[in-house]
Amino acid sequence: MFTKPTFLIDKEKAIKNIQKIIHKIEATNVDFRPHFKTHQSAEVGAWFRDFGIKKITVSSLDMAIYFAQNGWQNITWAFPTNILEIDRINALAKSIKLNLLVENVEVIQFLADNLLYSASIFIKIDTGYGRTGVVWSDTAKIQAILELCNASEKLQAQGFLAHFGHTYQARGKTAIETIYQEGVQRLQRLKQHFVHDFPNLKISVGDTPSCSVLDSFEGVDEIRPGNFVYYDLMQWQIGACTLDEIAVAVACPIVAIHPERQEVVIHGGGVHFSKEFIEKNSKRIYGMIVENRGDKWGNIMENIYLKKLSQEHGIVQVNDAFLQKHKIGDVLKILPVHSCMTANLMRDYVVL
Amino acid sequence: MFTKPTFLIDKEKAIKNIQKIIHKIEATNVDFRPHFKTHQSAEVGAWFRDFGIKKITVSSLDMAIYFAQNGWQNITWAFPTNILEIDRINALAKSIKLNLLVENVEVIQFLADNLLYSASIFIKIDTGYGRTGVVWSDTAKIQAILELCNASEKLQAQGFLAHFGHTYQARGKTAIETIYQEGVQRLQRLKQHFVHDFPNLKISVGDTPSCSVLDSFEGVDEIRPGNFVYYDLMQWQIGACTLDEIAVAVACPIVAIHPERQEVVIHGGGVHFSKEFIEKNSKRIYGMIVENRGDKWGNIMENIYLKKLSQEHGIVQVNDAFLQKHKIGDVLKILPVHSCMTANLMRDYVVL
Repeated sequence: MFTKPTFLIDKEKAIKNIQKIIHKIEATNVDFRPHFKTHQSAEVGAWFRDFGIKKITVSSLDMAIYFAQNGWQNITWAFPTNILEIDRINALAKSIKLNLLVENVEVIQFLADNLLYSASIFIKIDTGYGRTGVVWSDTAKIQAILELCNASEKLQAQGFLAHFGHTYQARGKTAIETIYQEGVQRLQRLKQHFVHDFPNLKISVGDTPSCSVLDSFEGVDEIRPGNFVYYDLMQWQIGACTLDEIAVAVACPIVAIHPERQEVVIHGGGVHFSKEFIEKNSKRIYGMIVENRGDKWGNIMENIYLKKLSQEHGIVQVNDAFLQKHKIGDVLKILPVHSCMTANLMRDYVVL
Repeated sequence: MFTKPTFLIDKEKAIKNIQKIIHKIEATNVDFRPHFKTHQSAEVGAWFRDFGIKKITVSSLDMAIYFAQNGWQNITWAFPTNILEIDRINALAKSIKLNLLVENVEVIQFLADNLLYSASIFIKIDTGYGRTGVVWSDTAKIQAILELCNASEKLQAQGFLAHFGHTYQARGKTAIETIYQEGVQRLQRLKQHFVHDFPNLKISVGDTPSCSVLDSFEGVDEIRPGNFVYYDLMQWQIGACTLDEIAVAVACPIVAIHPERQEVVIHGGGVHFSKEFIEKNSKRIYGMIVENRGDKWGNIMENIYLKKLSQEHGIVQVNDAFLQKHKIGDVLKILPVHSCMTANLMRDYVVL
């Protein structure tokens, strides 16, 4: 019985999501380095380990340290290296195989001067997303970073790492594939450009939409999706998953009912869901309500959705049929918009 | 030195914010019951205690338990009572003076039947915000709740509690005052309506915009603002504070610089700031950057603002003057959009 907002993980669905992607790359030479920022949980991480996964990705040094403490020995910190963290980077590089991201000459020089142990370097490439990274066409800067890398005994150039984050704006397989192909071609061109002087550079890519809809990953050496283990409404809207594949929900008690405006109030707000939303028919949707099936859940309830959030309150749009069947003290299960943010906020969870 | 995203509290500013509101109500008979959901910190709570404050407001039972453990003996849980939590409610009602919110007959009946210790009841009134509460004109329902309250030895009717949350959509003092006056009049009318049978009912109101801009609080018995201790860009946009009164900032290291598009990348994302934004000149602003003054900060940098967030990355819009003065590894201080959400996410903080 869930008496307050509770983050639920349907383990069976999560395992299926992991299996599906592993199955897809089994026949290829592509490495699978799942991103653990989605769950941030040693317990969920162990499910990946059961599939033989040994390499992981994280988005912060705190997470890298946490997973290293939980036995993970090969970690890519997929975030531009923060030079102010050099002491903790050194402590971590001493104990595990650490892959760092670099996208400028100052940082690679700083690492060459200050790193006490070996680390591998991925050059962060911006293939068109426009968030961060060396722009793919700036071969002069990439060359400079690679040379500084080569000149240091501590640093090993691993290759090019990109995040095709603009797939999150795409809708449907064709749109996602177009972004993916363009990005991979640009990375391939870089690899070719440098193949003579640096013959072993790898290509690592990672967004969940691409990794979900593509059937093969030709031209890349490694994929790093994270969100696919849980999925969420954002991925569903992109076309990366079905509603049935979403492996997490938040259980929220009904605390008030307003039949006159067809709304119920739940305990479940911005501190549980985050304030991210998807837009559908020009409505903002902060979560969709699913039918209870014991502790688990079934299909979504059509036209019943989380329409507004404050810190602890959630307002759910309902209808007459819903009102006839529900009362104060009932628990609703709600699919979140962005499972990474929800998992980060909730911290505690229940595995079903 | 702040090497990673760090939530900073300028204690001097926070104390001034507390002093200002206490000063305003000193000459009145209005009770001050600050909302502690903003800071969720026993340490910050103690600053209020130093001013003689003994009564507080919280928004969740978890928070009520936490502050009770930290010596607070008189707590209003300003959220519709969740009947599924009856065991923890009873444990708390045993040890402190607990005020509960009720807005329907089912819940007051449930409490009458299941509460093992005394508790005070505020009826949650909706004066026009439309989130939750008994609609102010529904005197029949309010009468029913009051009578059930009276019939129980455990329950003491305290009065009417409202949150004028629609002041958050207001801009400027006059607009805020209009909402406040309308709400208070409606609550006054209720008080008058029931004064014969229930002569001692109180009126409790609480939004930060009203409590910030109004000079007096005639017609109410208690105010419960929370956000005013820190303030934030949302309150500044409403007109509830000046930028200089904002008492919190997040320190974020610069990890990448993109001069060609006048952007810098910081470690500081949705998991630190939350994804709330204000809109100004049709731009979404997730935070404003202030000048460093040692560990503290000074004025905002004009036209420099946090324009985009992903989980750990923040993208700051800068200009040439900024770029000439800043380099990778510098730490930016950023005023948050919604300090309650940011404080909730960051959990740890540094008091300056």
